[in-house]
Amino acid sequence: MLNPVKVGILGLGTVGGGTVHVLQRNAEEIARRAGRGIVVTHACAKELNKTHPYSTDKMMLTAQLTDVVNNPEVEIIVELLGGTTIARDMTLQAIANGKHVVTANKALIAKHGNEIFAAAQEKGVMVAFEAAVGGGIPIIKAVREGLAGNKIEWIAGIINGTSNFILTEMRDKGSDFADVLAQAQRLGYAEKYPTFDIEGVDAAHKLTILASLAFGIPLQFDKVYMEGITKISPIDVQYADELGYIIKHLGITKRTDNGIELRVHPTLVPNKRLLANVDGVMNAVLVQADALGQSLYYGAGAGALPTGSAIVADLVDITRTLTTDPGNRVPHLAFQANALVDLPILSIEETETLYYLRMSALDKLGVLAHVTNILSENGISIEAIIQKEPVSGTDHVSVVMLTHCVKEKRVNKAIQAIEKLDGITGQVIRIRVEMLEG
Amino acid sequence: MLNPVKVGILGLGTVGGGTVHVLQRNAEEIARRAGRGIVVTHACAKELNKTHPYSTDKMMLTAQLTDVVNNPEVEIIVELLGGTTIARDMTLQAIANGKHVVTANKALIAKHGNEIFAAAQEKGVMVAFEAAVGGGIPIIKAVREGLAGNKIEWIAGIINGTSNFILTEMRDKGSDFADVLAQAQRLGYAEKYPTFDIEGVDAAHKLTILASLAFGIPLQFDKVYMEGITKISPIDVQYADELGYIIKHLGITKRTDNGIELRVHPTLVPNKRLLANVDGVMNAVLVQADALGQSLYYGAGAGALPTGSAIVADLVDITRTLTTDPGNRVPHLAFQANALVDLPILSIEETETLYYLRMSALDKLGVLAHVTNILSENGISIEAIIQKEPVSGTDHVSVVMLTHCVKEKRVNKAIQAIEKLDGITGQVIRIRVEMLEG
Repeated sequence: MLNPVKVGILGLGTVGGGTVHVLQRNAEEIARRAGRGIVVTHACAKELNKTHPYSTDKMMLTAQLTDVVNNPEVEIIVELLGGTTIARDMTLQAIANGKHVVTANKALIAKHGNEIFAAAQEKGVMVAFEAAVGGGIPIIKAVREGLAGNKIEWIAGIINGTSNFILTEMRDKGSDFADVLAQAQRLGYAEKYPTFDIEGVDAAHKLTILASLAFGIPLQFDKVYMEGITKISPIDVQYADELGYIIKHLGITKRTDNGIELRVHPTLVPNKRLLANVDGVMNAVLVQADALGQSLYYGAGAGALPTGSAIVADLVDITRTLTTDPGNRVPHLAFQANALVDLPILSIEETETLYYLRMSALDKLGVLAHVTNILSENGISIEAIIQKEPVSGTDHVSVVMLTHCVKEKRVNKAIQAIEKLDGITGQVIRIRVEMLEG
Repeated sequence: MLNPVKVGILGLGTVGGGTVHVLQRNAEEIARRAGRGIVVTHACAKELNKTHPYSTDKMMLTAQLTDVVNNPEVEIIVELLGGTTIARDMTLQAIANGKHVVTANKALIAKHGNEIFAAAQEKGVMVAFEAAVGGGIPIIKAVREGLAGNKIEWIAGIINGTSNFILTEMRDKGSDFADVLAQAQRLGYAEKYPTFDIEGVDAAHKLTILASLAFGIPLQFDKVYMEGITKISPIDVQYADELGYIIKHLGITKRTDNGIELRVHPTLVPNKRLLANVDGVMNAVLVQADALGQSLYYGAGAGALPTGSAIVADLVDITRTLTTDPGNRVPHLAFQANALVDLPILSIEETETLYYLRMSALDKLGVLAHVTNILSENGISIEAIIQKEPVSGTDHVSVVMLTHCVKEKRVNKAIQAIEKLDGITGQVIRIRVEMLEG
């Protein structure tokens, strides 16, 4: 058997530790699969004297990133620094040094992937990022290789575990967003500063990557429409339920005749769909492809060992193709670098979908007629409507509607007009709906 | 760009046609991914003058298999003959000729895979079989590459669409097995001679393959315990439902301290599990792995285009690694050929699981006490018990029990004793139960 492949890790936090743990615990099985061992020989950590649940005996530990990145012995760098500044510098430095790179850093790939892959292409090295989307689920591999014969039509995914946990708890317990967030923070499912998760930024990073792999387009994080779950109220969760829907935070990218849709937002999903039944911190990605039809990939989207699982899979892939002519390797973004196309990305106004609308209306004849007139004038037809009993002590009723498929700018125009009506109080709540049909 | 890769297809039936269709329809996207075109240049078909929904203009069509297999121009053979005699001969011949092989033939791989892979290893060619399990779902790739860092603990899969369609209809409509089978035959979801599907043979072929990939053991089809769905009656479907379970036909393989479980049979699954909600002809495979935890892969398990999707993915993989040193390619059975281990396969008697038991008992004090005594003597404890009202006009009641986890031979012994009791009429119905917990 060949000598073990030498790996240098930047960052021995949760994911770094998980990676070393998986490599050590399953060393024998991994070597039987890869044909040679994969060993972490160098690691950069903030605290050098911490004790770990894995052995650091045979590792060179350092606090200096360049000690690892510039070490001629190291063949593959695992970048787990987070952020997009030092991580970018170190990744480019590793590539410049002729090293392959594995990263779990979705922000880095979404924002600087085009630059990083171009540098890697130039140098003939691999940059692997299975852990960047869906944690341990091999979703990058499925889209990039498993569906290589397909024209991919759309992808819809639950790709942020924190948001999915919060929405699951809100539904199961009828709780408020703020209460569940506090609970999620206590349980460690949400960070102290959870903006990236609850405002959809993290999901947008991941969606950027999926869209590139699916459609052969450059990474374009700045064109993703982003909406988080902070404005979802328990009453909408309940009304959605009455209509047979569950609210999920989805990343959606879709090929249309006019361009690519790229959007992250809360979405009503029919409750019979598998995706609607993915609960808690779990992730799942549904792919609609022309030959295969629908396929779904489900698993743990975060955590030390699941993310470690994806990183080790990348290390095995790289180990197997170390001697392969770079032109014959799986391309970074599924399509050959010279075969990417610059399809237009649609603005959210140009997106077509179904809508859930909720408004507070004066309980008086005529108000509803005005509302339906406005909708009709804007070419919006209604699939279902519920009018709730007036809240005691008020003269207002909640009116909930589901529309048919329509362009978002029409809905926005209608909402503006409805909000100006005399009998309507406050804002019209609008949540998008996806049927997820094949 | 390099010249296109030349492919020869053996069999232009449903799947062969689907494969050509996918290759032609998505030729541009496939070439953008693979870095070069993939073209069917030779095909062997029974009827040469049939019209097809795809072009055969640039193909050499022949009725003679050896015209394709021995043609020096052809680089990759796609074997879609079915059966295990001529298919085996042609596969070995293609390998001897130094050609790579793609096959959708699960029976061939399950029965002759060890021989075929040894020959391929010797010749330095690839034999790819993504289409052999789960149709178009990239499950082979997920287990073999995506989970390469994991120790796989068990796999449970809905891997026969016909059985799943029949069980879904039986549950939704309360119909008899025979009626639904006839309907499935009319719809084309079941074949005229459906033994392989409804007796579990097809699922056993697929499970044999999954077990090898998961545990690094040789293919051992003759050691799979097989039970089909022919004896499932609507009353068991209904009682299972009352207890919160759905009956699915599963292939299950599990690593235990004493050896590998390898079994295909109807199974009660808790109705909240995603696997319980995979309906109709769809397939899904649930994998429990030590680092990743549970992951699930869902999609179309059969059909021209879905199966074509998997075959084309294999063609792209092979195209990319044509110039790779054979020792660095992904090993056929996930583990390097010299790293397979011969773990013992457990007999079904040694398997441990939970059981659903249904019996017809005289509605008299004491009978149930005798039954529970026998169970207790055999170390079987009971999780739940339902006693139904006597069927009108009889003095017998149905008694349904769920046991805790216990070795199957104990259950068999207890059933023998129960069937001999005076107050028990007929056979005790026994269906295995899996909780599918992480």
